[in-house]
Amino acid sequence: MNFSERLIEAVTNKQSRLTVGLDPNFQLLPPSLLEGVNIGDRAMLARATTEFCIGIMDAVGDLIAAIKPQVAFFERLGPAGYASLEAVVKEARTRNLIIISDAKRGDIGSTAQAYADYHLGWSEGVDGEPSCLGADAMTINAYLGEDSLEPFIQYVRRGRGVFLLAKTSNPGSGDFQDKLLGDGKDRAPLYHSVAVLAERLTSQVSVGRFDYSSVGLVVGATYPQQAAALRAAFPRLLFLIPGVGAQGAKPADLRDCFDRDGLGAVVNSSRSIIFAYRDSANPSDWQGAARTAAMALRDEINSALRGK
Amino acid sequence: MNFSERLIEAVTNKQSRLTVGLDPNFQLLPPSLLEGVNIGDRAMLARATTEFCIGIMDAVGDLIAAIKPQVAFFERLGPAGYASLEAVVKEARTRNLIIISDAKRGDIGSTAQAYADYHLGWSEGVDGEPSCLGADAMTINAYLGEDSLEPFIQYVRRGRGVFLLAKTSNPGSGDFQDKLLGDGKDRAPLYHSVAVLAERLTSQVSVGRFDYSSVGLVVGATYPQQAAALRAAFPRLLFLIPGVGAQGAKPADLRDCFDRDGLGAVVNSSRSIIFAYRDSANPSDWQGAARTAAMALRDEINSALRGK
Repeated sequence: MNFSERLIEAVTNKQSRLTVGLDPNFQLLPPSLLEGVNIGDRAMLARATTEFCIGIMDAVGDLIAAIKPQVAFFERLGPAGYASLEAVVKEARTRNLIIISDAKRGDIGSTAQAYADYHLGWSEGVDGEPSCLGADAMTINAYLGEDSLEPFIQYVRRGRGVFLLAKTSNPGSGDFQDKLLGDGKDRAPLYHSVAVLAERLTSQVSVGRFDYSSVGLVVGATYPQQAAALRAAFPRLLFLIPGVGAQGAKPADLRDCFDRDGLGAVVNSSRSIIFAYRDSANPSDWQGAARTAAMALRDEINSALRGK
Repeated sequence: MNFSERLIEAVTNKQSRLTVGLDPNFQLLPPSLLEGVNIGDRAMLARATTEFCIGIMDAVGDLIAAIKPQVAFFERLGPAGYASLEAVVKEARTRNLIIISDAKRGDIGSTAQAYADYHLGWSEGVDGEPSCLGADAMTINAYLGEDSLEPFIQYVRRGRGVFLLAKTSNPGSGDFQDKLLGDGKDRAPLYHSVAVLAERLTSQVSVGRFDYSSVGLVVGATYPQQAAALRAAFPRLLFLIPGVGAQGAKPADLRDCFDRDGLGAVVNSSRSIIFAYRDSANPSDWQGAARTAAMALRDEINSALRGK
């Protein structure tokens, strides 16, 4: 099965369109995990990070369509952070979770190939363990153009997935992404051009039985009108939708990101779930707080889609 | 001294506008370094990578304005690769080399902060060693807009530098970067908008005594006309110019990227220098081949600027 098929099967089987972002900012980890940890000791921080991420997966694994590790917070801890990232991905795999590496990489030639090989590859090391991250999908920045995507698309042809940043969820996303290109009736924003590229790349890969491409888009929940326009124009592109929760968007804003069967998109939340303990009546139960928050958001998204 | 001052001083003192890219693609390392190395063993590959990169710095250090590690090839080797990256950067620091981390990161909020803290930070770990990479500058992808750059600009205010991808050197760079935005006489390509943003950010940082900003641009040597237009329009922005050598551009194409004093830009070459041994009469002397290639390119750039 290719990536789009696997993701949609997970959505259907688990009745969840939710993905949870693992953004283990060490400054926000539960105090119990930081007990005795010297904040200058990256190895100790990385162990707390691994414990936290595995604990979150245990708490929410059955409630989510995929898990999305945010690579920056692991890179922040250097070599120990990458060991943590790989340990977390390995645990995600044993839990049959679909893994989306949120790396937002973008480069050219052999450099892009190295990024693709690491994040999406499956080469095996001497210890029988993967000698790469081997995520199911990753996020990509397409600013460098179509040729920069080819190494990643090679992996899509072999079953992996990518999400190209189209319209991101932050306030400044309009600075470049909303700029209008072209003339007359062809005039369209830059993020629309990224979607056109994703659609073109889709013609080079197998679409799979749900008629969705494994070349998808990142489309921010904070811009529901733009998201709806993209959905209407590109019915085969899967959307990965950040911006719900801490960034302010509501599930009800997202109805138009989905097709008539309630498919075609997954909605990510990171901080409002993994750090839910911070606003909880019982902050020591960080796993329980994450589970409660994930369940509530999963149900809220499903409710918003009812009667579509 | 801020980054732009330090880089220009290095150019002036060493009479070199050359930066060398450390792109240690393990498949291209000199055979002598791969002897007995199991290609599936990342720890062994990382050791060979470190030895190679230090060897290259020893061979070319006095000939270059800065060294530019390409992070992808280190990430490719996971935790051991990051240990190698940090070891290489540490050695570069002891050799007083200016370090440009070629990471092309771009993200938002606390994620962008984590990337900035790692690549540009200077926090110290328990062992007295830096608990981050701590490069002097890094490359950035600005597709996510101005707010996504703020964590990096905070470091620029404290002496570091950034280079925003404007017009990259690859054939597909035109797919998005050349698209025209705006109307009438304000009509200009997307890469020009990135330069406008860099210029605006420059007003928020101190420019330094050479009147160059530590917010610079990546401008591909393979597009000399666009580079010349950017140079003319943005006289305060430092250029990092890839695309010479393996990618086909010639130093003579670059005259217009420099100001009247021959300053304002550095020219990067990676493969054609570090892997020069592959086209050498004596391929076992990979350091000598790299030195010869670097010296020739340094001189060729300087010659091209004579009489400016």
